[in-house]
Amino acid sequence: MFLRNCWYVAGWSHHFAEGAVVPRTMLGEPIVLYRKADGGIAALEDRCCHRLAPLSKGRREGDDLRCMYHGLKFAPSGQCVEIPGQSIVPPHARVRAYPVIEQDCWVWVWTGDAALADPALIPRALGHDDPEWWMQTGQLAYEANYQLINDNLLDLSHLSYVHENTLGRNSMSWGNSKPTVSRIDRGLRIARWVVNNPAPRYLDQPKGMLTDMWAAYDYMAAGVFLLRTRSYPPGTAAACAMQTPTAEPLWTSLTSQAVTPITEQQTVYYYSGCLNKAFASEESSKAQIAVFEQAFAEDKAMIEAQARVIAKTPEPRMLGTASDHALNQFRRLMDELIAAEEHPAKAVAAE
Amino acid sequence: MFLRNCWYVAGWSHHFAEGAVVPRTMLGEPIVLYRKADGGIAALEDRCCHRLAPLSKGRREGDDLRCMYHGLKFAPSGQCVEIPGQSIVPPHARVRAYPVIEQDCWVWVWTGDAALADPALIPRALGHDDPEWWMQTGQLAYEANYQLINDNLLDLSHLSYVHENTLGRNSMSWGNSKPTVSRIDRGLRIARWVVNNPAPRYLDQPKGMLTDMWAAYDYMAAGVFLLRTRSYPPGTAAACAMQTPTAEPLWTSLTSQAVTPITEQQTVYYYSGCLNKAFASEESSKAQIAVFEQAFAEDKAMIEAQARVIAKTPEPRMLGTASDHALNQFRRLMDELIAAEEHPAKAVAAE
Amino acid sequence: MFLRNCWYVAGWSHHFAEGAVVPRTMLGEPIVLYRKADGGIAALEDRCCHRLAPLSKGRREGDDLRCMYHGLKFAPSGQCVEIPGQSIVPPHARVRAYPVIEQDCWVWVWTGDAALADPALIPRALGHDDPEWWMQTGQLAYEANYQLINDNLLDLSHLSYVHENTLGRNSMSWGNSKPTVSRIDRGLRIARWVVNNPAPRYLDQPKGMLTDMWAAYDYMAAGVFLLRTRSYPPGTAAACAMQTPTAEPLWTSLTSQAVTPITEQQTVYYYSGCLNKAFASEESSKAQIAVFEQAFAEDKAMIEAQARVIAKTPEPRMLGTASDHALNQFRRLMDELIAAEEHPAKAVAAE
Repeated sequence: MFLRNCWYVAGWSHHFAEGAVVPRTMLGEPIVLYRKADGGIAALEDRCCHRLAPLSKGRREGDDLRCMYHGLKFAPSGQCVEIPGQSIVPPHARVRAYPVIEQDCWVWVWTGDAALADPALIPRALGHDDPEWWMQTGQLAYEANYQLINDNLLDLSHLSYVHENTLGRNSMSWGNSKPTVSRIDRGLRIARWVVNNPAPRYLDQPKGMLTDMWAAYDYMAAGVFLLRTRSYPPGTAAACAMQTPTAEPLWTSLTSQAVTPITEQQTVYYYSGCLNKAFASEESSKAQIAVFEQAFAEDKAMIEAQARVIAKTPEPRMLGTASDHALNQFRRLMDELIAAEEHPAKAVAAE
Repeated sequence: MFLRNCWYVAGWSHHFAEGAVVPRTMLGEPIVLYRKADGGIAALEDRCCHRLAPLSKGRREGDDLRCMYHGLKFAPSGQCVEIPGQSIVPPHARVRAYPVIEQDCWVWVWTGDAALADPALIPRALGHDDPEWWMQTGQLAYEANYQLINDNLLDLSHLSYVHENTLGRNSMSWGNSKPTVSRIDRGLRIARWVVNNPAPRYLDQPKGMLTDMWAAYDYMAAGVFLLRTRSYPPGTAAACAMQTPTAEPLWTSLTSQAVTPITEQQTVYYYSGCLNKAFASEESSKAQIAVFEQAFAEDKAMIEAQARVIAKTPEPRMLGTASDHALNQFRRLMDELIAAEEHPAKAVAAE
Repeated sequence: MFLRNCWYVAGWSHHFAEGAVVPRTMLGEPIVLYRKADGGIAALEDRCCHRLAPLSKGRREGDDLRCMYHGLKFAPSGQCVEIPGQSIVPPHARVRAYPVIEQDCWVWVWTGDAALADPALIPRALGHDDPEWWMQTGQLAYEANYQLINDNLLDLSHLSYVHENTLGRNSMSWGNSKPTVSRIDRGLRIARWVVNNPAPRYLDQPKGMLTDMWAAYDYMAAGVFLLRTRSYPPGTAAACAMQTPTAEPLWTSLTSQAVTPITEQQTVYYYSGCLNKAFASEESSKAQIAVFEQAFAEDKAMIEAQARVIAKTPEPRMLGTASDHALNQFRRLMDELIAAEEHPAKAVAAE
């Protein structure tokens, strides 16, 4: 079950070099992407309408893409514009073209109804492509359903266990802290204080330094995680009565992460790490992404193991706990959005 | 869906060395082949009737084959002739024996009704085992349904695209030439002029030499490709009004190719390349087969990619083009032959 | 189809080292085992009741096991004893605990109704953990249903074929000897003379020495093989009129072997080789297990090949032979036991 009327990240801008013809499977659909002469990106069905060969084994010719099996040529609109050996190209000789937008160093593809592909629905990735911020990027392929990764990102109590030696180092605060969770348009806003949190090793701070960290993120359908953390001297959380801080933090860290379903059982995960140049060196920024890579490998190992157990369990049932609060809300939100796109009339009637 | 009442190539003669016990899966059936003392070949069901162990893990004893699990011994007729630990061998203790004929360096097996296994139905491979011709051989395993390989061989317009750097080098003639297609008994005859075709690199001809090439082949059920090409000076095609040439060519090339289904998703492909010793050296012959190997690897990459797309497409539909003419005719012929063997009475009535 | 009310070997005692957290799949169920402080073994469902992560990726804390996804902690009883972030642990927060007993160097797990897990039903492995006997151990993973391995062990006529160069060396006696087969409680007792059997190479005996060997084993549900062989001077079998010998043998050899289903298509096989220290050196004992390893690799190759043939055969049917006598009896016994556990009332009524 996928939410189709939604923007999904197909990759980093640098994945789509001039001249490259890039295959992607998104929500079970084969898609081929390439840059046009004007730098814009075309996204076509990766399946020739003639004999179903993949166009990604084809050749870019100007802004068009030629199938290299029997030579049919397609425009960025999906329309076939040449069939070798015949003079007439029928209008129904075409492949599907997908709405595609490049924004904040991510290439976003819409796999649902093109008429509903509103660019304003694209979440803004924090700190991407901003000269005041260092930005490092990565990606990871998962053998797991995308919802298990959403679940993981919506319950950060796992940091104390999965990441006890990396992101949750020396601290049980994640496991025990209670976030506030509020519904926003097509997403949730989740925030919490993590008190007495060790300063990350990759920042040039005194050994053993502790901070109170305000960690706040929006989690947007169908799986975009936009986190800003602000670190303060210990005691700040209590002084704020555990509410949203207003003072200037010691430092701020940003990360944006996008979960894109490949199939029901496979997912790809794109992530950034951004530090402000005012307080962090490029070296710190690279050290931060190295910690992320290590931590996300820990997530992958756990989530893929979980997926294998679920796959072998005849009727999997989960036990609710207090820390599931946000992920359950998000699963309900996704169910609502998916139901609304399957029965649009009913959704309108219910409003 | 397979045509069972048909001869299929099980391998080259040299695959069946004296003493070898060779397993093959053909049309989904496990078959074991070995040479008898008289040099003839036996083809048995590769599945002991006792506990279903493969006889191909067995031992040849004279003309018989002993299962090396519990020792049952089978004659080339399929009849069990010994069961250790019991004195009587019941007549129903037997495995299936398949009609098998060795001809033109190929071993042919019939997986249908043995009563219909007419040796005259075996297509004659061109130039095989002929002292006047150099003959080189090869084979290739495909992860694809056999019909996709038939399709490929029945629409040579793909040479201009798949093989733009090998067999279709420097020439769009293949993509644009229109072959004549005529029905023959259990097959199609397909012929065309390819004008201004570069002389192949492996022949010792002047650099840049062009020829008019008459390429004519029979494509026989269930997938045997028998091609003869005749090369002439440029202008010959026009001088013949694009009809069949009668003059002596500069040179002739022969290739025979056989497509054998392993399962619905796997296929094996046997091919030869033959050049006449009167105009080609052994070196040219080896260079020719090297080009074939490179080209058939190009086919394999494209066809397996196509098969993967088809496998993932819920209701695959193909768009007809002019160049599909022959492959559509052949698919219809195969459908007729398969329908006829499933309803033999009706087929007779319809004649 | 599995017999669930039965003890199965989960591994050798030495597989469960202090501190180790060991995953096993048994009869399709994920199980995690670890040693408690008192040296006893705990066996829990390897699937956290919260989000279904495997507990085998968890951490032992005292006698408890903590899930390292979100930190739930479980006691050896299966009861959850801690849920981070909430003060109350509901009683239904638990995973299944399995009866487990360590005996004769094997760890036995009961996957059926715990109320019926009678320790007296565990077969006694011969010569294990006995200071008078050398004991060597091994294990082998199979891609095959467990019944095919039972079949193999219940028809030792295969020694003359599968093991013609190892256990059945130079002798057709296995293939031609007729064992006596008698039913015992939850098993069969099978015994035979193997006459003129070569003395094993690993014993320090004269080259070419022959013996009459009395080979007797119990085969216990669901797949435990307990073999004692006694070797005598040639002529002893005839002198006993092929009945059970009473005299002291030249030497005795013991082996116990346990077949444990992983899934319907995968099995693990544990085996020992034991020689009495009175007549064999440790070197002989190690040489014996090396022969076993070689022979069991021969079995594995044949049985996995058989399993692949069966898997591809639409309606597999086997032909009965005289040597199938014991394995057919055992298959019927297993069918009865499985039917009895599915319809316990009817089984009682029938008694």
